[in-house]
Amino acid sequence: MNISVIPTAQQAQGIDFSGQTVVVIDVLRATTVITTALDNGACEVIPVKTVEEAQSLYGTCDKALRGGERNALKIEGFDLGNSPLEYKKKAVEGKTLILTTTNGTNAINNVKGADEVVLACFRNAEAVAEHIVGLPYYDSPTFGVVIVCAGTEGRFSLDDGLCAGMLIELLKQKTKVETDDLGLLLNRFYNESKSNLFSALSGCYHLKRLFMLGFYDDIKFCLETNCVGTVPVVKDGKIVRK
Amino acid sequence: MNISVIPTAQQAQGIDFSGQTVVVIDVLRATTVITTALDNGACEVIPVKTVEEAQSLYGTCDKALRGGERNALKIEGFDLGNSPLEYKKKAVEGKTLILTTTNGTNAINNVKGADEVVLACFRNAEAVAEHIVGLPYYDSPTFGVVIVCAGTEGRFSLDDGLCAGMLIELLKQKTKVETDDLGLLLNRFYNESKSNLFSALSGCYHLKRLFMLGFYDDIKFCLETNCVGTVPVVKDGKIVRK
Repeated sequence: MNISVIPTAQQAQGIDFSGQTVVVIDVLRATTVITTALDNGACEVIPVKTVEEAQSLYGTCDKALRGGERNALKIEGFDLGNSPLEYKKKAVEGKTLILTTTNGTNAINNVKGADEVVLACFRNAEAVAEHIVGLPYYDSPTFGVVIVCAGTEGRFSLDDGLCAGMLIELLKQKTKVETDDLGLLLNRFYNESKSNLFSALSGCYHLKRLFMLGFYDDIKFCLETNCVGTVPVVKDGKIVRK
Repeated sequence: MNISVIPTAQQAQGIDFSGQTVVVIDVLRATTVITTALDNGACEVIPVKTVEEAQSLYGTCDKALRGGERNALKIEGFDLGNSPLEYKKKAVEGKTLILTTTNGTNAINNVKGADEVVLACFRNAEAVAEHIVGLPYYDSPTFGVVIVCAGTEGRFSLDDGLCAGMLIELLKQKTKVETDDLGLLLNRFYNESKSNLFSALSGCYHLKRLFMLGFYDDIKFCLETNCVGTVPVVKDGKIVRK
């Protein structure tokens, strides 16, 4: 299996991902939010680019919720923000979630033409790895996985990179893996850091910013590993449980 | 001093670098070649995009040499390839070098609007760090350095990243440095790897490719650290010694 890593959502733009399985990672916090929402019974998540799109789609959907953030904070008039702790069963069960975030939902929408688009975070990394090695031809030497790290404000973000490094490690434990230079670096970083992810990310710009805004419990939740089995996949522009 | 790192030449395209000092790194091999050529007495290096541009410029220059590569190999009809070992004093002294390479010269040409563009490699990293802390206002909190890693075929390359990590370390030894997430990761990687750069880069795609093509001596030369004092800078589209 060949694994390559794209450092930001912006770099994924314009790439034709035909024939590839793409994994999008936005640990803080979009892919953690989506995984949590689906795990707690949301029917589907629709990722949209703008607040206006979210509002207009909301008018056409039954049992919908509007979620997301701008500048890390809840959008005025929306039902939920971008804290995974808000996406509890009683809030999301049976609902369609319309989500717009600065980095993560853009990353998902930037991936075009892939055979399969999967969303990963620390909480479901093992389930995502299991899902990938369950795909047909996963052990063919031409089978390609591209990990798209969402990044923050157009820049590479260490939290997404560390999760990419973890996913590569989990796949290496299951099959023969070749990876590119960024994948090698991130896998090495994960292996050196796995005993304390929080400490490994202490310099991370995005983590520090959320910490300053008081989202300590969010960060703690987002850095818990392998505690849910839900694998979000994109089907016809909507994200559903596999 | 704020230091940010851009992982590939392609990502530097379209950015306005006004007010920034930019350091371009293409360890294997363009910035090592340019540093070596200037150190051995070349008057100037003109980086061009295409073979045709190089040929047409050659017709208008006195004492010129055409150098560079396509697919890592010397271009037909050119005077020199992209091996720094070819750029000896007797070959380059007093000459204008017209250079076209796949990654490095593009990276240099992609940087627009910077206050200063400097080229670095392992061989001159300490001299580049000294040069940067000799610039006016280098210790102002708003002074910004952007390191552009050239990359290989549009992808991040570990050799350039390791050199970026070294340059950050050298600057940290001289002044207070804040860096972005990629800078943090690369600086950490360098500090863990500095006792054996060759071993740290054993998985690097570009290094392995040059090794397979028989360029072992080039790789060895490119991984020697802090052995020349020459700092190439870009002035009006030409690269000269500072």
